[in-house]
Parts: sequence; structure tokens; C-alpha cells
Amino acid sequence: MSAPPPKPVLLTGASGNLGRMLARELGAAGWTLRLTDIAPFPDPLPPGAVFVRADLNDGVALLRQAEGCGALLHFGGVSVERPFEEVLGPNLRGLYHVYEAARRERARVVFASSNHAIGFHERPREGEPRLDLDCAFRPDGYYGLSKAYGELMGRLYWDKHGVENVNLRIGSCFPKPTDARMLATWLSYPDLVRLVAACVAAPRTGHAVIWACSDNPRSFWGRDHRERIGWRPRDSAEAYRAEVEGRLGDPVAERYQGGAYASIEYSRAAPSPRDPFALE
Amino acid sequence: MSAPPPKPVLLTGASGNLGRMLARELGAAGWTLRLTDIAPFPDPLPPGAVFVRADLNDGVALLRQAEGCGALLHFGGVSVERPFEEVLGPNLRGLYHVYEAARRERARVVFASSNHAIGFHERPREGEPRLDLDCAFRPDGYYGLSKAYGELMGRLYWDKHGVENVNLRIGSCFPKPTDARMLATWLSYPDLVRLVAACVAAPRTGHAVIWACSDNPRSFWGRDHRERIGWRPRDSAEAYRAEVEGRLGDPVAERYQGGAYASIEYSRAAPSPRDPFALE
Amino acid sequence: MSAPPPKPVLLTGASGNLGRMLARELGAAGWTLRLTDIAPFPDPLPPGAVFVRADLNDGVALLRQAEGCGALLHFGGVSVERPFEEVLGPNLRGLYHVYEAARRERARVVFASSNHAIGFHERPREGEPRLDLDCAFRPDGYYGLSKAYGELMGRLYWDKHGVENVNLRIGSCFPKPTDARMLATWLSYPDLVRLVAACVAAPRTGHAVIWACSDNPRSFWGRDHRERIGWRPRDSAEAYRAEVEGRLGDPVAERYQGGAYASIEYSRAAPSPRDPFALE
Amino acid sequence: MSAPPPKPVLLTGASGNLGRMLARELGAAGWTLRLTDIAPFPDPLPPGAVFVRADLNDGVALLRQAEGCGALLHFGGVSVERPFEEVLGPNLRGLYHVYEAARRERARVVFASSNHAIGFHERPREGEPRLDLDCAFRPDGYYGLSKAYGELMGRLYWDKHGVENVNLRIGSCFPKPTDARMLATWLSYPDLVRLVAACVAAPRTGHAVIWACSDNPRSFWGRDHRERIGWRPRDSAEAYRAEVEGRLGDPVAERYQGGAYASIEYSRAAPSPRDPFALE
Amino acid sequence: MSAPPPKPVLLTGASGNLGRMLARELGAAGWTLRLTDIAPFPDPLPPGAVFVRADLNDGVALLRQAEGCGALLHFGGVSVERPFEEVLGPNLRGLYHVYEAARRERARVVFASSNHAIGFHERPREGEPRLDLDCAFRPDGYYGLSKAYGELMGRLYWDKHGVENVNLRIGSCFPKPTDARMLATWLSYPDLVRLVAACVAAPRTGHAVIWACSDNPRSFWGRDHRERIGWRPRDSAEAYRAEVEGRLGDPVAERYQGGAYASIEYSRAAPSPRDPFALE
Amino acid sequence: MSAPPPKPVLLTGASGNLGRMLARELGAAGWTLRLTDIAPFPDPLPPGAVFVRADLNDGVALLRQAEGCGALLHFGGVSVERPFEEVLGPNLRGLYHVYEAARRERARVVFASSNHAIGFHERPREGEPRLDLDCAFRPDGYYGLSKAYGELMGRLYWDKHGVENVNLRIGSCFPKPTDARMLATWLSYPDLVRLVAACVAAPRTGHAVIWACSDNPRSFWGRDHRERIGWRPRDSAEAYRAEVEGRLGDPVAERYQGGAYASIEYSRAAPSPRDPFALE
Repeated sequence: MSAPPPKPVLLTGASGNLGRMLARELGAAGWTLRLTDIAPFPDPLPPGAVFVRADLNDGVALLRQAEGCGALLHFGGVSVERPFEEVLGPNLRGLYHVYEAARRERARVVFASSNHAIGFHERPREGEPRLDLDCAFRPDGYYGLSKAYGELMGRLYWDKHGVENVNLRIGSCFPKPTDARMLATWLSYPDLVRLVAACVAAPRTGHAVIWACSDNPRSFWGRDHRERIGWRPRDSAEAYRAEVEGRLGDPVAERYQGGAYASIEYSRAAPSPRDPFALE
Repeated sequence: MSAPPPKPVLLTGASGNLGRMLARELGAAGWTLRLTDIAPFPDPLPPGAVFVRADLNDGVALLRQAEGCGALLHFGGVSVERPFEEVLGPNLRGLYHVYEAARRERARVVFASSNHAIGFHERPREGEPRLDLDCAFRPDGYYGLSKAYGELMGRLYWDKHGVENVNLRIGSCFPKPTDARMLATWLSYPDLVRLVAACVAAPRTGHAVIWACSDNPRSFWGRDHRERIGWRPRDSAEAYRAEVEGRLGDPVAERYQGGAYASIEYSRAAPSPRDPFALE
Repeated sequence: MSAPPPKPVLLTGASGNLGRMLARELGAAGWTLRLTDIAPFPDPLPPGAVFVRADLNDGVALLRQAEGCGALLHFGGVSVERPFEEVLGPNLRGLYHVYEAARRERARVVFASSNHAIGFHERPREGEPRLDLDCAFRPDGYYGLSKAYGELMGRLYWDKHGVENVNLRIGSCFPKPTDARMLATWLSYPDLVRLVAACVAAPRTGHAVIWACSDNPRSFWGRDHRERIGWRPRDSAEAYRAEVEGRLGDPVAERYQGGAYASIEYSRAAPSPRDPFALE
Repeated sequence: MSAPPPKPVLLTGASGNLGRMLARELGAAGWTLRLTDIAPFPDPLPPGAVFVRADLNDGVALLRQAEGCGALLHFGGVSVERPFEEVLGPNLRGLYHVYEAARRERARVVFASSNHAIGFHERPREGEPRLDLDCAFRPDGYYGLSKAYGELMGRLYWDKHGVENVNLRIGSCFPKPTDARMLATWLSYPDLVRLVAACVAAPRTGHAVIWACSDNPRSFWGRDHRERIGWRPRDSAEAYRAEVEGRLGDPVAERYQGGAYASIEYSRAAPSPRDPFALE
Repeated sequence: MSAPPPKPVLLTGASGNLGRMLARELGAAGWTLRLTDIAPFPDPLPPGAVFVRADLNDGVALLRQAEGCGALLHFGGVSVERPFEEVLGPNLRGLYHVYEAARRERARVVFASSNHAIGFHERPREGEPRLDLDCAFRPDGYYGLSKAYGELMGRLYWDKHGVENVNLRIGSCFPKPTDARMLATWLSYPDLVRLVAACVAAPRTGHAVIWACSDNPRSFWGRDHRERIGWRPRDSAEAYRAEVEGRLGDPVAERYQGGAYASIEYSRAAPSPRDPFALE
Repeated sequence: MSAPPPKPVLLTGASGNLGRMLARELGAAGWTLRLTDIAPFPDPLPPGAVFVRADLNDGVALLRQAEGCGALLHFGGVSVERPFEEVLGPNLRGLYHVYEAARRERARVVFASSNHAIGFHERPREGEPRLDLDCAFRPDGYYGLSKAYGELMGRLYWDKHGVENVNLRIGSCFPKPTDARMLATWLSYPDLVRLVAACVAAPRTGHAVIWACSDNPRSFWGRDHRERIGWRPRDSAEAYRAEVEGRLGDPVAERYQGGAYASIEYSRAAPSPRDPFALE
């Protein structure tokens, strides 16, 4: 990993699983971190880090925490499928606060988007092309919809205010794969840490999109902005194949990239079309 | 216009300019209308129409108004650029309520989206291709972003629940064009009435997108789903050319399709790139 | 217990004491359960059951959980005397959401009402008649008032929309009686389970009221709709007489049916009259 | 009218139609009035009166306005059928505030209840008995339900705290009858003024219920507490018979005492039973 | 008036009486104004001015409006005595937003404080000293208390962040005096305009306090920071003496500097002591 | 300690550290206590005590708890520096509710104010005078500002309504000193208990201010109203000198009386002036 960034970096969602891991690793790498979450931070603070407990709904507090930061790593908000009302405040309003902070600071946003923003694309069959960064959004729930909203918020702030942002469409970021789908979607912790570091270090990013999974041969995803960022994954889910390849979901989950999220309350008579604009 | 639809039709935003016009015209065509708005309905009720004053934030009330309806014409919510907090409730939460209602009723949604969902695309120069329906979203403000969100909400409900929806990217719907940009974007009232009627009457729509402007030779927009809907505009802005063609906006407004909305608080050093994913 | 109901059954308040017991017993009896509560469900899910954590204040979420259900067992909300503001949302607004859901689904409501809706009736003295189902409401606090409100909400939905509902005026539902008053009011867990099952299985209920206590010889309560429901209690508090009969409350608690709830902040100079309409 | 009451009297809803009329008449009779409403008071203030604009949701403000008052005339809140959410705050929470104020002041409450609290009783046919004060509540909507709630709040405060309250089940209080139903339900303005004055002047009221209509031969209503209050109506709707007797509502409205309120969104297959507890 | 300030100036409360007057006069003097209010701006916009309708409760919006401003003229919020709940949001929360904006912009705050922050000081009798800037706060109501809070917020931001602020304890700013008390407290419109201009133009202010009244011989107030600001009033109430000198208030109002505000709901047995810390 | 007070005493914040200690000690001394907190009370209830869990935002509930009380010990609310939004409800609104309750009951308020209301005064150097009770407020954060607001609320209610109140500017109340600053600011638990008892027992207090620290030779604080209250501290921090005297904070913390609170987000270029009104 390159030298620590010259300015402090704000990390939202610091008390979540990915947040804690990032805080630990980036802190150990010498970064000056500002940590925030609505829940208390359960670990020892990394050296030089500050933690402020706050609600993403409180925009003025967030703007203040971001003062002087060069990058905002936005990993906060609801991170699983939940009723709409629970998503609205932390995810939709929270994104607005993060982008207002970035605009004020002329800081870059690294946004923990998700494959669930495009989860209703079918998985590619043998020989079919993988999905590219310019595919249509096809969210698979209110959570995924909030992630698409976040990417478009990023596009708006780039177009209107020149705020740079990198949108990490995270696949499945866990210590190791736990089901067959993760042979495609798994992102190792070290690959995420290097990705975040690259996003912050890149000289220019514009509005960028990254398929955030490890170097998995079965990945669903193709072209993105990794060259612009200067990142390549090093790990691969394939090492876990024997362990997980029989662990399948229901037929809806297996058909769509979003997996089990797609099948939550799925009520369609026939599968939705491959082409998002097609009639059937 | 074809025969009135067999089931009642709910119209949100009924007390707004477009809502009042649609209520009058569709009522006169024999439709059974349910009208709702947060503001009182200022006109005489069309025959057979019912008006219920209610807030789009009140989802249970909206679900009830929609009972038995075959189509929901969603023209409610904030309809101009406003601070984010004012957009959140009526536009974002309101959309969720409208789609939950449609899912319950197996009704079709006709959504008053807007060109401001793609307003940061540059205007096509002489000989350049027009924008097609599968272009990337490039919202030009919080209002436009709420419209993109609404189209993606429609895509989610189509993919997950088979709820049909037609998204009208309305250009500029006024009695007549009032500035030069409207030579491209103007939508006449009669064209809108016929479009809405076609959306409701079409046998199948899936998730459809319509560039809702009249038959303007200078239109920015190309391919869409009008054949699926069975609609063609009949009016044209060109008749008003002499009257308006000198009425230009500032350079930012003139460069982008969203016009003056794009230049509200515009703070970019250099114009944003043509390609939404490009670095510069 | 009869065969499981043909349609799923929604149980609110599933994480409370009665909710957990009902989930376990009805699940074991083969019912298809939808469970919901604002608190996480602490037990293993019964086979076939689904749990959704949600707030009774979120009506659209509740309406969705109820889709396809044939009966709603409403055991959620605040279940003890609390300041008014804490009762308002979950109990008053929550009831509206439950009844809107029932109306939409043409489902039957089984409502955990309470003796505290009539708790200011005096206890019958030796030889005096017991209270019948058509006695006046005499709530003994904000909690009891919310239960009376719920019964009247049931009456409104029955009169206006034909929604059937059974209102269980639960006495004291605990594993066993713990004070002398419960010799009259105790309801055993098995009697409650059979009662709920009977309420769901009954061919027609209309708007029904049940004195939900076991077959206690000292019961305060007489005639109700148990024949319509097809239920009779089998247990009796009398078996516990020796254990509890000296455990008395203060004089106000001993005078009124609601017991200790009646004496919370009681400030009357003289006892309130027997007849709810009497001057003194 | 008797001498003005010795202590000030608080009137909520002072800016509504009945509130303005009462303020004018009671003010002219020499009462010391405190007036409050969420809307400005549009008339000249009666001599000695004070007006404070406030929201019934603001309990601490209401408690303060009530200080030193001997009677609270509660005419505030939503006074027509509205979506539940609009009724909740001013009517349900508002009632709690009014009763807390009355308890603190040991003041009497005169509550503008409504016939809509019992509106789903059928109208009596020729020779059938009229409804007595101890009939069951049968609200005909959320508004009527809030009035039943208010009467039961009164019963609770009487039973628990000895707060006296008179519940006026107002029929139709307008300058003159405007449809055939009002031949039964009309209450003249002078009869209301005298009734309110009698409620305040009565030496003791306990928890009382009054059928608040004029001396109409066709009244639906019978026995109540008017003797306890010392009031008899003097006017009669019969004088307007010729003018209004053909003005009928729809069949549902004509069947039930609540009239047009009963038919709002009425969706029962068959009429609801005469007996509120009957199966059909 | 000196040259217009080099940076834009934000004026809150622009649609109020003083706000409109300041907008007109400062706009005419060539200032670049940003205007905001929760109510629409009723006048033609001054040249170069922008108006954004927004709520002082919306802090992120306010921070944005303040971007690039060199001074914030805070005239917004509730400007008369109102129930506490109505003061809380616009005045207390609003002040926090204004000061956060000023800190971000390193801008100076000119705060429309009020004599009601010290309104419970007695009026000086013949020969007694006038009140100096370091007198204790003695607010005469919730409004005055919010002004004292604002001055202390200013002190906090000065001490902690070096944000400069001038607190104008405005007496009675009207076109001309309308009662006898204003012979002491009147501030003419031109004097206010010159004062505001001086506050913005002063090279350094620190945390300053100004008795904002005209050059009235009967003024209650003495030493303040006017020399630091470089301002002296030019008008005098004395010219209106004959017109108003008999217009007196009640004895409480006449005793205290806050006048009629002091007597709103005044309930003390004996007058409060001269010394704010004295026992009696 | 003198005899228990004749009337019940309400203690807010009863579940906090100081609240629990006071409940235990005052309960053991025979006081009749009403305890309240938003968190459950974790200890056995003292004899005769009642605990009601409630939110300080719920004013009507607080007014009710205070009924019949002769003194309100207000130790509730946020007790450390927190983002503004978290301070607003419990501390600012909560104070209003406490004072309205006191006014209604003609009760005395004992308010747990704090040295942080004046924390930006510099610590006195050798030979310099200590701070007296009439020093200017110089809050060192939002928490300290809420305490200054509370003292001024007390002054308002004293001036306008004759409500007596004693404002304890608590230094550092812990079992024993834990750093060098507490050699000046420490208040022992027994000294606090005696102080509270004295505040309640004093025949008259008016609006009083107490520097609530033990008899520490290094105290920053001088003259106050302790004689009026009849209290003198008996303990001293000096006994702990050896243990703590090397435990210093950062230079900002060491300069100002508020210690570490002053240095939270401190961003001044140069130290703030000694004189609160000075330019520099």
C-alpha cells in the first residue's frame, strides 16, 4: 500500500464489520482516520483516530466531521434489505449529507455501493458476455435501490460540482466464501483494503465504477474503471470451490446476480426479461 | 381517444397545473377518476370524480385511495428544484407508496418523470445522434434525481413483482413554448392527454420509457417505447419559432439538456464530460 | 386443536411473552405463521414461519406482511400501563394499521383486548350478577383505554366493511396465578392457545367479545360469544387457591376488576359509582 | 342564561364555526373567556377575552392556558371525517391534553362529542324506541371513533380522578336545517348556547351524556342526563319541514343515524345488524 | 454608507418587516445579497440578490446558502413572544445553524438580538445609571431567552473558534415611535441600516454588543461597543414626544425595560428585585 | 442532615451516576422521592420512592410526576459534550418542562448546572482573584451552553413567576479526583448530598448560584450564595494531591476552567481574551 494520504479520511459506518476491518487496517497503515457510526465503536481506536458517535440523519454534524478531510469512505447506513422506512433516513438522506460534505471539502467520495444495485440482471451463462460498468441499474430491493440512488447522487455531484467519486459495487465481502454464488461475487478483505487505498491514492477518478470482487474466474462482471484507479484484485474465491460449490439457493436466487436478495418477496409470474427495457 | 378505461384511475397531484388539465380532459372523456393532492382541488369536480385531500407521505391513505384502480397517474410531489429535505418526503417516500399501491392493485403506473433525470447530457449538435431511451441517467438536481429514483423504483417493481410502468420523461409541458429551448422540449397539453390515455389503454407496457415531447423537429430525443404504447405526438413547437427563438439562457443552461436547472448552483471548473463515465 | 387454517396467519407482538408462546404452540400445530415485532424474535423460528422486524407505526410494512393472510392475531403494542405518549403510536395508530390490513385481506382480526378496558367496574359481591359482554367500557388507564379503542375500531370495521373480529378481554395470562385476584382472572396458556385456534377456525364470528379467562369459579365475568366461537376453557385457577389467596392488593385494587391498574395514580375522593352513568 | 361562571372558561376550537358563535354569545353574557385555536381568531375579541393561538398537540401550552379555569369547553380538533393520520394528533392526543388540564384544575369538561360516535345505529322506525344514553358506541368513521374515545377518556378521568364531564352528542348544529335528516338531528345555535351554559352552571354533573339536538319531534334519541344538567331545548326543526323534507341521501345514509358519514367508503355486502353484537 | 462589502452577505428573515427594509436599502447601496426566509419574498428582488425559500431548521440548506459569504445578518426566526415549542426550532436550532455556517465561512455574524434578553431590568429612574453592556441577562419571555441564548452562542463561537459576532439588542424598530416607552427604545430604520453596514464594515469586532436604539435622550442604555463598530445613531425619538408620551402600559410593563413583554402572564406576588441575584 | 422535607421531591436523571447516589442517600435519610429517567432505574428502590420511566421531552408526563412536589432536583438530560441535536431535546426542551412543573407546583428547582457554563474563563493565576457568581457566562460547548440556558430559564421564572431556583455549577463530582484539574474542581459525593439537602431546606433562596466544589484550596471559584443556602463543603481534594497532580491535559485544557471540554474541536488561532467582551 502506498503512503498514507496527506489529509485525514472520514470513514462512516466505522462500527460495522467492514468499517472495523478498514479502520484497523488503514489505521495500521498510518492513515489519519475520523471514524463515525450511530453505534459505539467496539474496538481499540487505531493510533491517531478519532471516533464521533452520530446519526447519518444529522447533516450538520456530518459536515463538521468531514472538515479538512480529503476523502470520505461512505460505508454507513443500512447494509441489508429492510423495510423502506428504515432505509430512507440513513441511506437516502445520509447520502445527501455525505455528498454535501464532499462538495464543501472538495473531497473524494468512495462509496460502498453494491451488486444489489444491479441484482436483477441474470447471471451470465457459459460463453455469454459479462456485465460492463455501463449496464442499466436493476436494483433487487429497497437496499439495492438506495445504492443506485447513491451512484446517481455521485453522478450529479460530478456533473454539477466536479466532486470525484468511486462507486464500489461490492459483491460479497466476508472472510471467505460461504456459498456457491460467492465463487463469482466474493471480495477478500485484503482486496477491499487495497481497493480503498487505491481509490484514495489515484490522481484523478472522475465518476468511476468498480466491480468490487476478487479475481474470481466465475465472476459475473467485466469492464470497469480499475485501470483508472490502479487496482487489481489478488485473491480468488476459487480456492474455496470444494467447500461451497453445492451450496445453492432457490431458483430465483440462482437465476439473478443479486442471489437471495432477488428472491425476497419475489412475486412475478414469469421471470423478468434479460433486457431491462424489453416487454417480456 | 379510445373508450374510457374499465376501472377507476387514480391521479395524484390533481391540484397542480398538469393535474387540473388532465382531470378536466380525462373527466370529459368519461373516465372514472380518483383525484388526490395535498392542496385543495380548485376546480369543479369532473363528473364521477372523487377528490381526497391527502399527503403523499401518508401511505396507508394512498393505498386506500388506489383500491380497485387499474392505473395510477403519478403527477404528485415537488415539481421544481427545491432543497433536498423538501424533495425527500413527497417525492422519494411518495414513490414508494405509489408503487406499493400499484403492486397491491396489480395496476399500471404512469409516472411523470422528467427530462431533468437526464438533464446533464449535452444537447446534440448538428448531425449528432439524439439521445435514446437507454442513455445513462444524468440528473441535473435533487428534483431530477428523484425522477431517476422513480424510474428505478419502477424497474424494481417490474423485475420483482411484474408491475407495469410507463415513465414519461416530460420535456416542458405548457400551453405554449416560452423560450428557445422549448423548441426542442415542448409538450403540448393535447399531446400529453393523448399520451396518458395511450399509456392506460396499451395492452402491455412492461417497463417503458417515453420521451414526452411534441413532434418538435429540434427535439433532443430519439428512440423510445412509443410504438409499444401506440402514441405519436401531433403538435409541434416549430409554430412558435419566431416568437421564442432568441430567448436563450446562460451558457451552462444552453449547453445541457436540462437547461436552467443545470445551471442552478453549478460550480464546476470545466464542463462535465459528454460520456458520463469519462474522466474529463 | 382442529386442522391448521388454510391461509397464513399474521401474529403481531411475536417477541412478547404471549407471542412467543403462541408462535411455538401454533407453529407446532402446523400453522403457517408470519411473525412480526419491533424487537428481534428470540427463539428458533417455528417450521414454515417467517419473522419480519417492524414497527407497528409503519403501516405500509404491516399491510404488506398481512398479504394473503386469513387471520391477524394482534398481540403487539404496549402491554402495560405507560405514559400516554408511549401508548399512542403502537397501540392507537397500530390498531388502525391492523384493521386496514384486515379490510384489504378480508381477514379476521383476533385482538388481544384486556379486562383493563372495563377495569373500573367493581368486582361482583357474593350473589351479584357477573359482568356481561354488553357492559359499558370503563377503562382503568391509558392502556385499557387503548384496548377499548381497539374494540370500537373493530366495531367500526365490522359495521362499515364487514371485517370480522374477536376481542379477547384477557384477564391475567401467566403460567400460573400469582395473587388472589387471579383466582378470578387467570387464563392458562393452553386455554389461550385453544381460544385463539377456535377464533380462527369459527365459520362466522361477526364482531365478537370473549371474556378470556379460564374456568375459574370466582370469575367476574358472565355471558359472551364463546358459543359462537366454539370454545370453552378447560383449566381453572382454583387449583392454586392455597398458594395465592392471601395475596391482596390495596383497597382500590381490591374493589375494582382491574386490580392494581385501577390504583395507579388513583386520586378520587370517594370511590366511583357502580353505575358508569350515575352521579355518585 | 344564569350569571356568568365565577372562574374563567377555556374554549378550544374558538376559530371554528361553533367556537366563534359560542365566543360571541358567552362573551356577550359576561363570561370571562380564554380562547384558543390553531387558526387565528377572525372576529373582534369579546370583552375580557384572551386568545392564544396554539396547537392541541402542545400539551404544556394547553395546560398553561387552562390554569385557573373552572370549565373547559372542548370544541377543538378535526370536526369532519378525515384520513386517520389527520385525526390522531388534534383529536386523540388533544383529548389527553384537555383531560390532563381538567384534572390539574379540578375543572369540568364540556366535550363536543358527536352523533357520529353512535352513527351506525339504524334510525328508529315508526313506533320503535329511540336510542338511550347507554346504547353501545357504533362509530361511523375515524372522526366518530375519536369522539367515542373522548367520551371514554371522560369516563376514565371520572372514575379515576373524579373529573366531571358532560359529553354533548351533537346532532347537526347549523343556523337552520338543510336536509331531511336534520329534521331529527338539528341543534339550533341558541339551544347549544343554553346547553353549554347549563353544563357549566350545573352543581354536579358526574360523567354525563346529552343528546344535543333541539326539540325535534322526529329525533332519534331518547333518555339522557338533561335533568341533571337542567336543560331543555326550546327550538324545533319542524318549522323547516317543508323546506327540506325531500332532501334525502343515499340508501346507506338514510338507514343509519350518522347519515352521509356512514356511507363514506361503505363496503359491506349486507347492512350491518341492528344489534351491535349480533352475528348478522 | 461605505462601499459595499467585498463578499456576498446572507440575510435571514428576509421576508419580515426589518428584512424587507434591509434588503431594499442594502441592495440599493450595491450589496450582493443572498436572501432567505420560510415565507416567500414579497417584494421585487434587489439587483444582484438571490432569494431561497428555506426553513431555519434545515441546517444543511443554510450552510449551503452561506457559502462564500463574508457576513451573516441573522434576522430570521420567531420575532415575538410565542409558546416555547414554536420558539425552539427556528430560534434555538436556527442559531446553531447560523453559527455553524459562520464558522465554516470564517464569516461574521450580525445577530438581531433584542432588549427582551434583558427586559426584566427595571427602567432607570431619574439620575440612576443606565444599563451597560455587561449587565446580567434578564430575559422577559421565551423569545427574550432565545436571544440571550443566541448571544451566548456567539460568545462560545468567539471563544472556541474565533467567529466574530455583533449582537444588536434592538429596542423598538418601527417607522416611528407608537407609545411612550419608545421614547427610550425606538430605533429608526435609517439608524438600523447604518448600524448593520457599520457592523459588516468594521475591521475587527470580536464578540460585541450594541444597544440598538436611536439617539434618544430617554434611553435606558449606556456603554456598549459602538466605537469598535464605528457607529452612532443620528435620529431621535424625541421628535415624536408630543404624539406618544401619554401612551402608557400596565404597571408591570412600565416598571421593566421589556415593557409589555414583561407583563405577559406575569404572576409574581411582589416585583422582582433590582439585583438579579438578590433574594428580594 | 436536617429533617426530610415535608413534601415529596422529584429527582430527574435518577438512573445516572449522581442520580443513583442521591436517590440512595436521600432515600436513606427518609425523603419521599419521585424518581424519573429515560433509562430504567438499576438499583433497588429506596423506601417510599416511586420510579417512572419517561422522556424529558414528554412535558405533560413530567408535569404529572411533579404534582405535589415541593422541590425538583433536575439532574436529567445529556451530561457530557454531544452533537447539538442530541442536546436540544433533553436539555433545552427538558428545562422548559421542569420549570413549567415548578411554576405549577410553586416548587423550588435545584438545577445541576455545570462549570462548563463558564468554562472559557481562564484559570486564575497565582494571586489573581477567583471567579465570582456574577461573572459572565462563557460556555465551552453545546452542553455548557445548555447549562447557561438553564440558569437563565431559572432567572426568567424567578423574575416573572417567583419560582425559586438554585443553580449548582458542579465542578467534577466523582468518588475521588482523577486528574490535576480536579484539585480545583472536585466535589465529593457527601458534599453534594449535603448541598442538595441544604438547597431544599433553605427557607428562601430566590435565584441563587453555587460553585459546587469541595473545600479545595486550589479552587477557581469565589463568592456565591452559600450563606443564603446554609451550606459549606467539608471535604477537600487536597488529600489526593500526590495521586493526581501530574495528570495534566493539553495546553488549551490547562488554560481554561472547563479543561478538556474547552479543547474539544478548539480552532482559535490565538487564545480567547480574558475579558469576554474584549476585542483580543
